Amino acid sequence: MYAIPLDDTGAELRPLEPWHAEEFLAHLDRGREFIGRFIPFGSQVTDVDSARATLQRYADLRAADKASHHGIWSDGTLVGGVLTLEFDAASGNCEVGCWLEPAASGRGLITRAMRHLIDWAVEDRGIHRVEWVAASGNVPSLKVAERLGFTRDGIRREAHQWRGERHDLEVWSVLAPEWRSARDAHKKR
Amino acid sequence: MYAIPLDDTGAELRPLEPWHAEEFLAHLDRGREFIGRFIPFGSQVTDVDSARATLQRYADLRAADKASHHGIWSDGTLVGGVLTLEFDAASGNCEVGCWLEPAASGRGLITRAMRHLIDWAVEDRGIHRVEWVAASGNVPSLKVAERLGFTRDGIRREAHQWRGERHDLEVWSVLAPEWRSARDAHKKR
Amino acid sequence: MYAIPLDDTGAELRPLEPWHAEEFLAHLDRGREFIGRFIPFGSQVTDVDSARATLQRYADLRAADKASHHGIWSDGTLVGGVLTLEFDAASGNCEVGCWLEPAASGRGLITRAMRHLIDWAVEDRGIHRVEWVAASGNVPSLKVAERLGFTRDGIRREAHQWRGERHDLEVWSVLAPEWRSARDAHKKR
Amino acid sequence: MYAIPLDDTGAELRPLEPWHAEEFLAHLDRGREFIGRFIPFGSQVTDVDSARATLQRYADLRAADKASHHGIWSDGTLVGGVLTLEFDAASGNCEVGCWLEPAASGRGLITRAMRHLIDWAVEDRGIHRVEWVAASGNVPSLKVAERLGFTRDGIRREAHQWRGERHDLEVWSVLAPEWRSARDAHKKR
Amino acid sequence: MYAIPLDDTGAELRPLEPWHAEEFLAHLDRGREFIGRFIPFGSQVTDVDSARATLQRYADLRAADKASHHGIWSDGTLVGGVLTLEFDAASGNCEVGCWLEPAASGRGLITRAMRHLIDWAVEDRGIHRVEWVAASGNVPSLKVAERLGFTRDGIRREAHQWRGERHDLEVWSVLAPEWRSARDAHKKR
Amino acid sequence: MYAIPLDDTGAELRPLEPWHAEEFLAHLDRGREFIGRFIPFGSQVTDVDSARATLQRYADLRAADKASHHGIWSDGTLVGGVLTLEFDAASGNCEVGCWLEPAASGRGLITRAMRHLIDWAVEDRGIHRVEWVAASGNVPSLKVAERLGFTRDGIRREAHQWRGERHDLEVWSVLAPEWRSARDAHKKR
Repeated sequence: MYAIPLDDTGAELRPLEPWHAEEFLAHLDRGREFIGRFIPFGSQVTDVDSARATLQRYADLRAADKASHHGIWSDGTLVGGVLTLEFDAASGNCEVGCWLEPAASGRGLITRAMRHLIDWAVEDRGIHRVEWVAASGNVPSLKVAERLGFTRDGIRREAHQWRGERHDLEVWSVLAPEWRSARDAHKKR
Repeated sequence: MYAIPLDDTGAELRPLEPWHAEEFLAHLDRGREFIGRFIPFGSQVTDVDSARATLQRYADLRAADKASHHGIWSDGTLVGGVLTLEFDAASGNCEVGCWLEPAASGRGLITRAMRHLIDWAVEDRGIHRVEWVAASGNVPSLKVAERLGFTRDGIRREAHQWRGERHDLEVWSVLAPEWRSARDAHKKR
Repeated sequence: MYAIPLDDTGAELRPLEPWHAEEFLAHLDRGREFIGRFIPFGSQVTDVDSARATLQRYADLRAADKASHHGIWSDGTLVGGVLTLEFDAASGNCEVGCWLEPAASGRGLITRAMRHLIDWAVEDRGIHRVEWVAASGNVPSLKVAERLGFTRDGIRREAHQWRGERHDLEVWSVLAPEWRSARDAHKKR
Repeated sequence: MYAIPLDDTGAELRPLEPWHAEEFLAHLDRGREFIGRFIPFGSQVTDVDSARATLQRYADLRAADKASHHGIWSDGTLVGGVLTLEFDAASGNCEVGCWLEPAASGRGLITRAMRHLIDWAVEDRGIHRVEWVAASGNVPSLKVAERLGFTRDGIRREAHQWRGERHDLEVWSVLAPEWRSARDAHKKR
Repeated sequence: MYAIPLDDTGAELRPLEPWHAEEFLAHLDRGREFIGRFIPFGSQVTDVDSARATLQRYADLRAADKASHHGIWSDGTLVGGVLTLEFDAASGNCEVGCWLEPAASGRGLITRAMRHLIDWAVEDRGIHRVEWVAASGNVPSLKVAERLGFTRDGIRREAHQWRGERHDLEVWSVLAPEWRSARDAHKKR
Repeated sequence: MYAIPLDDTGAELRPLEPWHAEEFLAHLDRGREFIGRFIPFGSQVTDVDSARATLQRYADLRAADKASHHGIWSDGTLVGGVLTLEFDAASGNCEVGCWLEPAASGRGLITRAMRHLIDWAVEDRGIHRVEWVAASGNVPSLKVAERLGFTRDGIRREAHQWRGERHDLEVWSVLAPEWRSARDAHKKR
């Protein structure tokens, strides 16, 4: 029902919901290797039932105002998404994350989707500090964070166990006043 | 984050969520007498805590895909809304309902919002039969149903206990093929 | 423990409970084709575990005062039953339903059982309106409703998805004063 | 709906259910001092809400097949009842208990009600061992147990904390074969 | 983290927790025949998943203050344990139980562990009556009870259904003052 | 039942449990101002009921293996404690925290308690990375972390909303190999 246009090619941001189970499975099957280099996102989704179960967990987190998941559709196909997690309106903190199929990269879709998501968190929900966490080796992700105006707070050493290795997790953040400045600067460009 | 424009005056349809509790309370306080002539909608909302509790019940129904609630904002103020309930994707059935502050009536806001909601139910969710239920005396509501292309299936006699009286409930419906015809006819106007 | 005699042949009405699981399965196996022409009743019961699970759902609805299920035993064999559902004491509304093995039809067992059930709903529980819902093609069911004094309120067009087709559902009702008149008339016969 | 006649005066045994809340409160208010000499039964019931909450706990135990509560009505007034608890069909064990208003004592109502209850437990539910537990000082209760054919297994010393004192609890039992013999003997009288 | 030395050979008492699942399974596999002569303890544990599920049930009972489970480790191997169950701080009652691999018997481990457990129940938790329940044929268990100062209250006849037979259950108890006397006597020895 | 001696003065570490509610309330009342300078620990505990509710939340987290709480008793009085939180055995990560009444400071109790807790996490539970998080102004806490061998990973800027201000949170960590080295060095001293 709801959609936010992301560019001129018809790419849209829409809430991701349990009834998208079959699309979600197909999308994860296409992007599994690429998405799974650094993050466990979607690794438990192997068939329609597990796709539905995962999306239902997201729906329940949404109802509890602890997270929200938004899919990016391009030409009617689900190709990635952005999300808030550890959303704590009372403390003014939340984390944001993203994932994308390889075929949809290079078009700035994540960056554009993130601008809408973080605007909502900061302006509508009163979030003061937005956090971005990625493995040190996940350069594409960290580049988007930097492009959006996040700065690095530090490195949680060996905090991430994935595929047999322990990876460092970089913690980046942007504060509400910084976000507004970055947004104003971006609009003038 | 998401909004659907309803007209040229800036009226919008947005998902209604627990964090709207204070707006919801203020809106119900303004419209209590008008909204409460025929329906118990919002009658349990008397302060911020009960406003939040009611919106949380809606959020939980939404997570279970059994209902959805959407608010109508006009000039940044919540003035009414539309909803699906008894949503049963497996059987292809759902009911729709609405409520409105008196100050916002006469602008076609409910009719416009309903077109979006029923389009979503029929085209995106595969609903075959949409039901509209209102007390026989609720003429404004029944007029909107008729305007949208619903027809009356019958009357559940004395089915509604409200404010000390038993009211008849009229049951109206529109089927997916009929909805599409009505929509095409509306677009040509 | 409790039983209500239905006729002179030893047929009885008793509460249906989870520990009747094996009897319930055997009964449904005998009547599956006949019962399943119009309603999904018992369609999920295929072995003792699913029989017990279904009866447990009924037991939980009973504890919540939302439904009640009563079996009809003939010669010590479970052959059918009557039930209340959508039971809402606060609003004075409920629906009633029934099911029967073909071998037990033609003896007026459903009609007799329904008189006890509806008397209880109306006189002991203060129900004002009792509803009977059946697919248009379910003539035996609709005849029983008529015999008991129900009248038709309308038809929910194509509301019932069953075995690949959409069926109309007829909605019949009897109000408390009408039930009492019908009962008095029946006693004088 | 269901009732079992207990004697010629119109006394009946019926399932005790949450909607009996007001009757239950009135009955406990009349019998509070008498019932409460040895047992906490009903001590938490002080108004309609707590009456309903207590009966709802019983209803939930019933749905789980762990207990059942049956009221004794005399002249349309609730005056006491019998119950099963710690009901374990798998192990063939259960306990039985009872309570009564003083005005209804001396008529054998508990004894008669117990015969129906224990018959059901033993014959319909396959219970092998029925237990009766009462404080040593609760002579009326122990006399009924003896009259029904129970024998004493032992005394759980100081097991019962009630009104500031520790009381011994006597444990009595009857086994299925013994129950059948006692029942046959009783019928011949 | 926590451990209580039981003797000079390095045997220890430690809280038994879900993460001990593999040790618990191995221990039950070694002792299954011996432990299972009279009690169902561990009979549902057949693989790591069921071991974890059983230990999780114990953890949940512990969180609810209804039971506690403590393992006996000898030379770093789990060989048996003691437990409280039916723990009711409000009424001052609880039951204690135990289990042991055959290879670890004859060293007084259960007796020593029980002294710590019952001291805690009586002195720290205010328990007035500790109960010990065992099948009449379980002579080793009843000997430990006697050694610790318990006396027999009675026999629940045929109360225990196990491996196709019905066994008598002996109920033994020790009251707080008796426990203190027994402890003082033991210390003087 | 279980206790770990911390020094020669009789100070002990014991599991903190719901039945410690009154001690916990008294302790928090004594230390409220001191403990509450930087952390919300115990701020919701204002009477015995809220003390019990808070400790029950800890007990439930413990049952789910997500956290553990341990009190420090000195001369039989609860004066502080240490805890694990965000405990994730699967990923090998956890956080540790502590709190102390002012009267008990200066005796190294937290440092000693932490050595036991972190040894358990690293050696018994396989934790690879232990995290210590404190507000930048909480110098006493950060000194203990440094003394134990933690190093600083970074600063989550303005991440902590407390008493009307936003504070930076420092994130420190120690990895399993580093912990073992620090422990060996400490023992040689």
